Amino acid sequence: MAITSHVLLTSHPASIFKQAAPLNWGESTPILRGPVVASLTKREHRNSIGTHSGSYTVYRALANASGALTMDHKPDLTNTSPFTNIGPFPSWGDPEKIVSLDPWGAQVADVFKSFYEKGYDIRPTIAITTAHINMPEINQAIDSGRLHIDNKIITKNKDVVVTKAAIDPVWYLPGIAKRFHVSEGDLRRVLFDQTGGMFPELITRKDLKILLPPIGSTSVYMFGNVEHISDLSKKLTVRIHDECNGSDVFGSDICTCRPYLTHGIEESIRTAQEGGSGVIVYFRKEGRALGEVTKFLVYNARKRQEGGDSAATYFHRTECVAGVQDMRFQQLMPDVLHWLGIKRIDNLVSMSDMKYNAIIESGIEVIRRVSIPDELIPQDAQVEMEAKKAAGYYTEGKTKDATELKKVKGRNLNE
Amino acid sequence: MAITSHVLLTSHPASIFKQAAPLNWGESTPILRGPVVASLTKREHRNSIGTHSGSYTVYRALANASGALTMDHKPDLTNTSPFTNIGPFPSWGDPEKIVSLDPWGAQVADVFKSFYEKGYDIRPTIAITTAHINMPEINQAIDSGRLHIDNKIITKNKDVVVTKAAIDPVWYLPGIAKRFHVSEGDLRRVLFDQTGGMFPELITRKDLKILLPPIGSTSVYMFGNVEHISDLSKKLTVRIHDECNGSDVFGSDICTCRPYLTHGIEESIRTAQEGGSGVIVYFRKEGRALGEVTKFLVYNARKRQEGGDSAATYFHRTECVAGVQDMRFQQLMPDVLHWLGIKRIDNLVSMSDMKYNAIIESGIEVIRRVSIPDELIPQDAQVEMEAKKAAGYYTEGKTKDATELKKVKGRNLNE
Repeated sequence: MAITSHVLLTSHPASIFKQAAPLNWGESTPILRGPVVASLTKREHRNSIGTHSGSYTVYRALANASGALTMDHKPDLTNTSPFTNIGPFPSWGDPEKIVSLDPWGAQVADVFKSFYEKGYDIRPTIAITTAHINMPEINQAIDSGRLHIDNKIITKNKDVVVTKAAIDPVWYLPGIAKRFHVSEGDLRRVLFDQTGGMFPELITRKDLKILLPPIGSTSVYMFGNVEHISDLSKKLTVRIHDECNGSDVFGSDICTCRPYLTHGIEESIRTAQEGGSGVIVYFRKEGRALGEVTKFLVYNARKRQEGGDSAATYFHRTECVAGVQDMRFQQLMPDVLHWLGIKRIDNLVSMSDMKYNAIIESGIEVIRRVSIPDELIPQDAQVEMEAKKAAGYYTEGKTKDATELKKVKGRNLNE
Repeated sequence: MAITSHVLLTSHPASIFKQAAPLNWGESTPILRGPVVASLTKREHRNSIGTHSGSYTVYRALANASGALTMDHKPDLTNTSPFTNIGPFPSWGDPEKIVSLDPWGAQVADVFKSFYEKGYDIRPTIAITTAHINMPEINQAIDSGRLHIDNKIITKNKDVVVTKAAIDPVWYLPGIAKRFHVSEGDLRRVLFDQTGGMFPELITRKDLKILLPPIGSTSVYMFGNVEHISDLSKKLTVRIHDECNGSDVFGSDICTCRPYLTHGIEESIRTAQEGGSGVIVYFRKEGRALGEVTKFLVYNARKRQEGGDSAATYFHRTECVAGVQDMRFQQLMPDVLHWLGIKRIDNLVSMSDMKYNAIIESGIEVIRRVSIPDELIPQDAQVEMEAKKAAGYYTEGKTKDATELKKVKGRNLNE
């Protein structure tokens, strides 16, 4: 293993970084904007803090340390380009519409050709492919006649044809700061300080405006013709879904996550089959971005509290443990919708007021909000559902008052 | 928002860290071992690099920056303690058996009481709770008579009763280095360097032996009596599953991930109903720990290569893009099994030679390996399955030679 003894802790912009690619966030063309360079093979070209693959950067470093991967490996991007082009849209050239992903991230091999020729190691931060998916709940929708085989979106095997994208986070720090109403300097200091000292360049390199944080990626599943997504003459169904491994994968009955997700997929397919399109955005924000350890601690506190698990104290228990009710920060969420060129959502399959407000405040019109059908709510999830409705979640029905909320009870730990 | 202007970049061990809790990894009792202190409320108590909640530390820092969360918030851990105790086992007192999690991480409030009384802010890195889960594939197993309602493990609503744990990573750096056959110094340098400069303390604070890396947590689902897991007189079924969001949640047909997972759950329930127990370990290692962006790039390269997607070139395409075939590093995986006190696995629901070898090399006996039943392999996943079998995956059947592998084809991108 070739590990040099020289460690580059931080460095001064004036000294060795004259070859760094210029970057002007929100410029209208890729060349004016400039490429995000966060690879480590030629450090003099870097114009970003952090590096690629979100939290998987740690595993890649292990691969380097163990000798399995050479430090100077450059990806061979042959045949990896997007299955279908998305954009560009006017929102890509607006420095405030998109601040948490690189809209050009899927097309780097194409639009930054001139940089590759000069030896820049630019990595895609978005990948777009196609897939066939097969889900028991969608099979059931077909069997019961709610969806039909059209040999286009649903094949004769009941597979659903999708286009899908994976998006790594790319944060434009001045834009992130603005979304959270703090100064860029304060944002940088707290990000460094409260992560236990991650990335001193946040402090020492204020000229670097881009951070690739070590967090999860975002997945986008698209149903129907991708070009219809931004076409205002076509209907569009969207669900914004935040990861909940316990329900999404394992079918836990304490929340509505998977049933609401599969309902969103069913509605998306329906809109696509009717000539529009559907989009599911899946964010890796486990347990309201508190992580699963905190989530399980909260479950225990809810189930064991005096009087048992109750809708009346649902949010309070999270706040005791985590200090906040929620860390998902929907302020950044609409970026992916603007990447897709969305201007109007006909059916928003979500009851969250936080998601709804973030979407409309970002300039996207929402025509209709789609609640989860009552019959899809698992027994033990009534506590969550009634607490959320009382706190402002969208519902066509009535919300319960404080006395009624106390009566909505969940199982205790031993049941 | 109270953001101080003073930024503590790094510091020298001799100066302000005299109050840091002593830590002797692998000592037999919690007090001799000492608590892992990675909270940021009293920095003089810290004995670790990084901080809590894995990659969600970044979201917590955003919560701090935005003013939603105070910097000095300490969790109220009332009622959060584990639903059931796991351990201690002799492996907990062995500095080499467990190096990537804190075996005492679930019981901190209990075993480190004396430290709390002195004002130390010690956070759980493991949480244990109970749940009811309901999965369509398990319902189907019940309907077809393969599993039965016993009103204990499977309720009359076809819910499955589980105990589950979430585990945040806690890395003992000398032990991690040993697993990868590198020096601790080289490991520290490469971890710092190849993550783009994460945690200068890796370099400046060699006295701190613990790192809490910003990666995903691990989930453990336990079926049957938890005490049976380490009981050699009872049968045990285990599946080690690495996250694949595209299949686990969305049912993509290019791999066997969800079908194999649900088969593992069915086998685990069966063993539990027969008086033994079952364990599913779910690692957040999306796309072989390469992340989903790289995974989708590889899909495109596979589907577009000359001759189409083929078992013969399955691994090669990943290597072109990522530089390695796999970054999951099964070397660290058995730690969770040793945390559970496992000495013998009767049924290992996995065909991976890497997982099998890691398990037996760590001193756990494996009696039987359980392949995925042929009828559960999706059509387009034959490419993966045959490539893996030819590369050393376990199978009772025959493996294909180079000529035959070329004939195992997948769909192309436009189908």
